[in-house]
Amino acid sequence: MQFRKKDLLGIKQLEPEEIEVVLETAETFKEISTRPIKKVPTLRGRTVVHLFYEPSTRTRTSFEIAAKRLSADTFNISASTSSIVKGETLLDTAKNLEAMNPDVIVLRHSAAGAPHMLARRVEASVINAGDGMHEHPTQALLDLLTIRDNKGTISGQTVAIIGDIAHSRVARSNIWALTKMGARVLVGGPNTMIPQDLDKLGVEVFNHLEDVIPEADVIMMLRIQLERQGKMLLPSLREYSKVFGLNEEKLSTAKPDVLIMHPGPINRGVEISPSVADGPYSVILDQVTNGVAVRMALLYLLIGGEKDD
Amino acid sequence: MQFRKKDLLGIKQLEPEEIEVVLETAETFKEISTRPIKKVPTLRGRTVVHLFYEPSTRTRTSFEIAAKRLSADTFNISASTSSIVKGETLLDTAKNLEAMNPDVIVLRHSAAGAPHMLARRVEASVINAGDGMHEHPTQALLDLLTIRDNKGTISGQTVAIIGDIAHSRVARSNIWALTKMGARVLVGGPNTMIPQDLDKLGVEVFNHLEDVIPEADVIMMLRIQLERQGKMLLPSLREYSKVFGLNEEKLSTAKPDVLIMHPGPINRGVEISPSVADGPYSVILDQVTNGVAVRMALLYLLIGGEKDD
Amino acid sequence: MQFRKKDLLGIKQLEPEEIEVVLETAETFKEISTRPIKKVPTLRGRTVVHLFYEPSTRTRTSFEIAAKRLSADTFNISASTSSIVKGETLLDTAKNLEAMNPDVIVLRHSAAGAPHMLARRVEASVINAGDGMHEHPTQALLDLLTIRDNKGTISGQTVAIIGDIAHSRVARSNIWALTKMGARVLVGGPNTMIPQDLDKLGVEVFNHLEDVIPEADVIMMLRIQLERQGKMLLPSLREYSKVFGLNEEKLSTAKPDVLIMHPGPINRGVEISPSVADGPYSVILDQVTNGVAVRMALLYLLIGGEKDD
Repeated sequence: MQFRKKDLLGIKQLEPEEIEVVLETAETFKEISTRPIKKVPTLRGRTVVHLFYEPSTRTRTSFEIAAKRLSADTFNISASTSSIVKGETLLDTAKNLEAMNPDVIVLRHSAAGAPHMLARRVEASVINAGDGMHEHPTQALLDLLTIRDNKGTISGQTVAIIGDIAHSRVARSNIWALTKMGARVLVGGPNTMIPQDLDKLGVEVFNHLEDVIPEADVIMMLRIQLERQGKMLLPSLREYSKVFGLNEEKLSTAKPDVLIMHPGPINRGVEISPSVADGPYSVILDQVTNGVAVRMALLYLLIGGEKDD
Repeated sequence: MQFRKKDLLGIKQLEPEEIEVVLETAETFKEISTRPIKKVPTLRGRTVVHLFYEPSTRTRTSFEIAAKRLSADTFNISASTSSIVKGETLLDTAKNLEAMNPDVIVLRHSAAGAPHMLARRVEASVINAGDGMHEHPTQALLDLLTIRDNKGTISGQTVAIIGDIAHSRVARSNIWALTKMGARVLVGGPNTMIPQDLDKLGVEVFNHLEDVIPEADVIMMLRIQLERQGKMLLPSLREYSKVFGLNEEKLSTAKPDVLIMHPGPINRGVEISPSVADGPYSVILDQVTNGVAVRMALLYLLIGGEKDD
Repeated sequence: MQFRKKDLLGIKQLEPEEIEVVLETAETFKEISTRPIKKVPTLRGRTVVHLFYEPSTRTRTSFEIAAKRLSADTFNISASTSSIVKGETLLDTAKNLEAMNPDVIVLRHSAAGAPHMLARRVEASVINAGDGMHEHPTQALLDLLTIRDNKGTISGQTVAIIGDIAHSRVARSNIWALTKMGARVLVGGPNTMIPQDLDKLGVEVFNHLEDVIPEADVIMMLRIQLERQGKMLLPSLREYSKVFGLNEEKLSTAKPDVLIMHPGPINRGVEISPSVADGPYSVILDQVTNGVAVRMALLYLLIGGEKDD
């Protein structure tokens, strides 16, 4: 099966077979980043624009490294330095960029659906690098790759996602991705952080972390958005950490080959203890490594194929 | 005729024949940006520094794309992140950059004449990317290219420029450029925004937009600087929009092949209505496309010739 | 002798022979920056990350130019735009970058010892681009290169360093560098700016600039950190300038081939008068030029050798 989409907007739009193509392509790209000369000419002369309306280091750098290792030219536009300050709309900014003939626009925006709107209006391929509390599809794809690398398969794995499920684009994209690939997904967190209709997504809700740990093949901890604290979703960080934080003690009942994942950046001592984050079950840095490979794969699948050449 | 200047400081310094060389060179570069591999090795190993003392996305990105499509190495320095915060003068910053052997310094600065001063003091080629309320020559050149592409010639065209003529570097550069190339230039705007001695520049002033629309081959709308509102140059945005804004109704008396231009970013519903900005006469996005081509041409003409190799 | 270090953390860790290798390698790289095509393929496909926790134009641009002239891919991360704002620790940020397989991390950080900590924890080569008030080794190396270029040798030269010795990483690195290479080092400045135990470093302290000028082969003026004024280290800028500032009058007793150096950016009229900064003895801009060559040499010596290929 080929990957024939113009854009990568969300996991929701992808067929399991398309996800499989991305993961297999990413697998073949992983090796490039381990060479002394970490560069192939695949996308030479292609133009990739990173249009970031929210601050980001990790995701933007990961995309930029992915593009440059494929020899594309990259351009970074962030809200703080752009004519966005002059009040221009996203669409006008994008149409303007479009007129400079980019091949890909990688967009991070605080409004859910912003990349989808853009994709309908520009000829360039659009990649969603996070839209509001909606989707973060490249994160979910790198998470899938990390699970597959370590477990051999995603289907049949029991994955527990823990934290602020309601406000997390990482959780949303992962729920779609994992259920599509045949994993069993359990989610848990404080009541204020669990959406009502999760069962429609094929997900089970748990209330006590201790109940879930023994049966989880993968435990995915979400970042607590400390800046959201003021909204009183949490009684206190200390309380949250006690109930839903992961530490070595709680992990003592886990399977011997459990995987601990986190999209980063981690709050050490809040949702995860340092000894777990840096411990033997943690694949947090593998996730980062896989992020570059997944983004290389997507750039290649979207603009590297025969259709353009 | 060859283009033998070291710098591109303003339209005022250019002969019509030199402008012609830039436009013809830009024409040949336009095609590169439509290829799958949008890159030629022309300026490989050349160093282009973008030194921006005012925030900018469009102009900087356009220059950066132009340079990279010619394979030059680019470096971005903006006032907010530079040692400018340590109080260094423009000249010291530039001499410092000069010592790192750049081939071109692209300068945007709030002081009129800053690029001219710099050009006398550094060996690198200097390109003016906007100096105060003085000149914005690459904007005028891309506007000329857009008119020529659509009309076949610039000479003999009637061009109406509408808005804050007094404080606009775009207007100033375009007035010089258009009159040099043989166009008839009409300007209009609120009295507080029209300089006194415009007739010396070979320009006619009009008071009522409605009088000018029927005879204009090109209508160039300027951006209203909303941030300048506090200075009371305008009675109100609503009033401005009513009198000098362009909408479909006013455009009903225009020639059937009129061109609507705007340097961007546009204030939708202020100086231009959305239906006109996105309508059939609008060449606003062609201007952006031509911006890359014109800047490629200038980089090539300034540092790509035999003199350096 | 080969240069076999993984990192460049400080001058303190270098043997004189290693310094010699850096200077000789830099000498061979200087010519590249004077070519029309300022680029060699030496580090093609290598990844260099500039991780700057303090604002910088000159040093970062110098490193970036050095890397690109060797054909490396560069990535800039500055504190203002990074997930540092989300409270991530330096080590987590660095481990995260490490997972993307960079070859070099160039670090500027306000904490003394930050690069040393990092170097122990990541496989990538770490270059110290300034750590707090501790070291700025690439600055000292480019200063050595500038002295050697002009004097033929460093050994036996008398070098006066003038300014805020106590709080200057430039002074600290230069004291180590110059004494290791056999120069005689004299330091002077207001009492509040002279550390107590300087004699242990093999340095002589002087109180009156006038006493030192006649015997100095090199006079190195430090930048007064105007932002530190509030701490009352100085009675007044005017007083400082009068006693420790360098001007033509004081320079009248200098040797005829004295070199005037300054790490920049200069405060004209404070520590140095404009006529001296721009005068015939000044090699301030040579220092900048040599900065690119020294950084090219270090990148080459750290990651360009056989060990990686």
